[in-house]
Amino acid sequence: MTEILKHINSPEDLRKLNSEELKSLAQELRKFIIDIVATKEGHLGASLGVVELTVALHYIFNTPEDLLVWDVGHQAYGHKILTGRRDVFETNRQLNGISGFPKREESNYDTFGVGHSSTSISAALGMAIASNLKGEFNKQHIAVIGDASIASGMAFEGLNHAGVTKANLLVILNDNAIGIDPSVGALKEYLTKARVGYKPASDNIIEALNFKYFGPVDGHDLEGLLKTLKEMKNIKGPKFLHVITKKGKGLKKAEEDQVKYHAPGKFEPDTGELLKYDTDGLPIKYQDVFGLSLVELAKNNEKIIGITPAMPTGSSLKYMMKAFPERAFDVGIAEQHAVTLSAGMATQGFTVFCAIYSTFLQRAYDQLIHDVALQNLPVVFCLDRAGLVGEDGATHHGVFDIAYTRPIPNLIIAAPRNEVELRNFLYTAQLGIDAPMIIRYPRGRGVLKEWKLAFEKVEIGKAECLKEGSQVAVISLGNMAKNVETAIENLEEEEQNKVAHYDIRFVKPLDKKILNKILEKFSKIITVEDGVIKGGFGSSILEYAASLYYTGHIELLGIPDEFIEQGSVDELQEIAKINVQGIQRKLESMI
Amino acid sequence: MTEILKHINSPEDLRKLNSEELKSLAQELRKFIIDIVATKEGHLGASLGVVELTVALHYIFNTPEDLLVWDVGHQAYGHKILTGRRDVFETNRQLNGISGFPKREESNYDTFGVGHSSTSISAALGMAIASNLKGEFNKQHIAVIGDASIASGMAFEGLNHAGVTKANLLVILNDNAIGIDPSVGALKEYLTKARVGYKPASDNIIEALNFKYFGPVDGHDLEGLLKTLKEMKNIKGPKFLHVITKKGKGLKKAEEDQVKYHAPGKFEPDTGELLKYDTDGLPIKYQDVFGLSLVELAKNNEKIIGITPAMPTGSSLKYMMKAFPERAFDVGIAEQHAVTLSAGMATQGFTVFCAIYSTFLQRAYDQLIHDVALQNLPVVFCLDRAGLVGEDGATHHGVFDIAYTRPIPNLIIAAPRNEVELRNFLYTAQLGIDAPMIIRYPRGRGVLKEWKLAFEKVEIGKAECLKEGSQVAVISLGNMAKNVETAIENLEEEEQNKVAHYDIRFVKPLDKKILNKILEKFSKIITVEDGVIKGGFGSSILEYAASLYYTGHIELLGIPDEFIEQGSVDELQEIAKINVQGIQRKLESMI
Repeated sequence: MTEILKHINSPEDLRKLNSEELKSLAQELRKFIIDIVATKEGHLGASLGVVELTVALHYIFNTPEDLLVWDVGHQAYGHKILTGRRDVFETNRQLNGISGFPKREESNYDTFGVGHSSTSISAALGMAIASNLKGEFNKQHIAVIGDASIASGMAFEGLNHAGVTKANLLVILNDNAIGIDPSVGALKEYLTKARVGYKPASDNIIEALNFKYFGPVDGHDLEGLLKTLKEMKNIKGPKFLHVITKKGKGLKKAEEDQVKYHAPGKFEPDTGELLKYDTDGLPIKYQDVFGLSLVELAKNNEKIIGITPAMPTGSSLKYMMKAFPERAFDVGIAEQHAVTLSAGMATQGFTVFCAIYSTFLQRAYDQLIHDVALQNLPVVFCLDRAGLVGEDGATHHGVFDIAYTRPIPNLIIAAPRNEVELRNFLYTAQLGIDAPMIIRYPRGRGVLKEWKLAFEKVEIGKAECLKEGSQVAVISLGNMAKNVETAIENLEEEEQNKVAHYDIRFVKPLDKKILNKILEKFSKIITVEDGVIKGGFGSSILEYAASLYYTGHIELLGIPDEFIEQGSVDELQEIAKINVQGIQRKLESMI
Repeated sequence: MTEILKHINSPEDLRKLNSEELKSLAQELRKFIIDIVATKEGHLGASLGVVELTVALHYIFNTPEDLLVWDVGHQAYGHKILTGRRDVFETNRQLNGISGFPKREESNYDTFGVGHSSTSISAALGMAIASNLKGEFNKQHIAVIGDASIASGMAFEGLNHAGVTKANLLVILNDNAIGIDPSVGALKEYLTKARVGYKPASDNIIEALNFKYFGPVDGHDLEGLLKTLKEMKNIKGPKFLHVITKKGKGLKKAEEDQVKYHAPGKFEPDTGELLKYDTDGLPIKYQDVFGLSLVELAKNNEKIIGITPAMPTGSSLKYMMKAFPERAFDVGIAEQHAVTLSAGMATQGFTVFCAIYSTFLQRAYDQLIHDVALQNLPVVFCLDRAGLVGEDGATHHGVFDIAYTRPIPNLIIAAPRNEVELRNFLYTAQLGIDAPMIIRYPRGRGVLKEWKLAFEKVEIGKAECLKEGSQVAVISLGNMAKNVETAIENLEEEEQNKVAHYDIRFVKPLDKKILNKILEKFSKIITVEDGVIKGGFGSSILEYAASLYYTGHIELLGIPDEFIEQGSVDELQEIAKINVQGIQRKLESMI
């Protein structure tokens, strides 16, 4: 089945093929992706949608001399397979395997590392301006960007700048009308008109920004793509090609349920039938605790609003969007807007729950400081995917949030250690806390059998003693409590008695009362967090201890000062020594 | 001269005036602003440009019930004066005076605190959606935004969302073709066509985003404005008014040199003639050390590129833009784009100096992590206005940068203690450091008489001992060295001998060699920085000391965990106890 593909070790091989062979190659490539993702998991739909485009780009352009940037990179599996990574593709997203996203270290065909959306135009424009400075005026620079990503402000900034340059920038809009969830916004509506045959006037929105506009063209018509790209290749300056594709193309079920088949898990490659996982008895996912609990709360509190920037499914805000569509909003990939929109709503007496992944709140850091915290507005940030996220790797770990939010005045920062605590934090937040609040929780499943207990109000800033002990105090944050508990259980019984365990619960405000006791009683303290050590929660304990002239030893466990790559969460926690064994070893060495 | 204005204590008074009186009021308001800013300093040009618009908005709309959001807020002086703050306006930007920006705590006419650009559409849209939820369907929500601000990605995100809502949002584009420096970008070129009479087709760029578009109208024709706004007031849904204004309107010199009169310092109110300050013998400004040194370096290194997001004058990148226009770029208010554009250029072998204020790098935090640091690209961030900036107040202090950059792997973080060191850091950065680097320096003037010494290479990560001592070690960061030196000089001679003084120079990587010596020798250490204490430089010393089981006392001086308002830098440093006296008192208490 890979008669042609097996001979393609680089785009040079591909460029020797004739038109019929290229078509066959596209089909083989599509099948290859399906077969491997079916068993190894990963992102499926996006790459299936750009199979023909991928083949066409590498055929027409002289990669890697011509520079190709994939936005986000979910769609770059075909690119990876065609550029020398066919035989290692089965290690995709695994520890020490290839990354799920383009990555400069991995290949010189990966011109720019991606993962977060909407960076491709800026990056490719930078390359294009650089080429002009080097006198390389024939070099091409191509950004392939989806319709969800191009609606983000950052992409607009790139277009707005490119339009006043002479850069050889080709922006290819991969318009499949969907990101991870369906695309939203006025620009999307505008683009949809183009899709259905309404040909925008010559002063269309893209041409208004000084781009030469081509399209829309059918992204699954390989010959048409080749023809158009060939024609465009020799045009200087900023140009734009609008390509219509279907996410999941070639696998019927993936075409029909594009949200589910974005990253479907394992499935039967011929039919697309999802493999059934036996989830009976497994704890619920944290995201669903958030999503379902918010609906419960919203029933009794009409001042609750939910906002998500493009993650209704991933954050489970979808439940609120279904139950209370007038009070729940997906604003698209627009983190900056999402945060300030929330602030605006909060000025009018609403309690806004802004559901956003930890790593994506980095996109709205200034808005968090300037629009929310400085005005002390009661926006509740529900930071999903906090900590190490696993297979998505370095671009997606939510390990910086504690360190970057802790310095901001007025913020309350909480991390639940289980599902019930998450519920109670949500409940407490909407009772009226008169301050902005961050609630951070991890990707994946919780730790309890029963999560839907009656809501209870939490005292803001109150830590908890989970276990008394005589010699060493462990202070853990959030879900790290579980690892610590198990590590203690693994100790000899006599040693167990020497270890006290506290759950700090709030990074801010710190529970000074309980800390005073800990600092007085223990000369050895260990802090455990799934965030970076530098500036993190442990660092806050050092600061407080220093203010009290503490002379004991405080050991900080957390993410070291390096970027952590992909792997399973367990593997990565082991690398950071915050897994059960790492904590246990540290305890044994300190007792 | 304030026959009418003196009776205007709120917009209600204004609404009782007839058309002729309104026109006179506008003239009085303009003169009032000129007279006070002439002696008290502040932002001049922007407010002069919207005098008629300000009067018209408060006349037509039922403020504060109708909600008015000023973008950035430089232009809101007239608004402040008409809404009950006429008599305190002379305290503008002073300690305990009124803020130079709209601020919720200050007045219920200030519906949203501003300072950083491009937030107004998101905030007003949030309010408008909230009003619909409350059943207040006739309430109006108005965002007044300049042409430089609307070109920022965040504003686009707001427009893109608003266009698919039924929110009563009125976006008023205050188009004067300039921000602080002249506006740039493709959108600006598009808007310029509208200004000169080219009437965009009915599918113009704004209407493409589902707004009802009105204008362009003359922003100094009060009657015309009143008529148009009255007409628009009753239109539901998102609508857009394009108003053409002249920055500095009514003061000839301010109209002629709009950049200089953005915030001109003291001037003669009738003629606009700037008061001459005797700057002979004063040290040069840090921004000019940056700007002029970069030109020197760029002469010998063709791989140097300069980028600024809309601050060519403020950052002094203007010198490079003049000397090497092909290698220096003002990308407009587009911090996210600026950083990733720099990263793109860096992949092609260029050393990019990205000049950006400390407070504005908050806008590109994710890009710094995801596009620069993760890929370890040699972009040099020149962070001007780091530390307390004085009269611009809470929105503009550059006090978070140390805390938010320190957790990021791969970064080099340096702070020069004087002009020569800044030069040498810049010189070293372009020699090839193979890592991203942050150089942070304060607003205003340096401390030396001679700054233009021959460049010298600096050893990355090397601290310096400035003074030996026997009992207490002070470790200062950057320009704080000067305060520490003076504080030590103020001590009795015997006590002076007890104090050692070190300049850490690099927050990252830390000089462990020198720190080992300090930690071994001293049981009392003071760290001094003009950034937040939580997670800041002092915290990094605590982390390192803890890793060595240090048992002495470390005292952290820096910005406490609260937002610091406006005032002179000296006054604010006193509040934070990092001025000479504050440091001196701390030293005396510890010896």
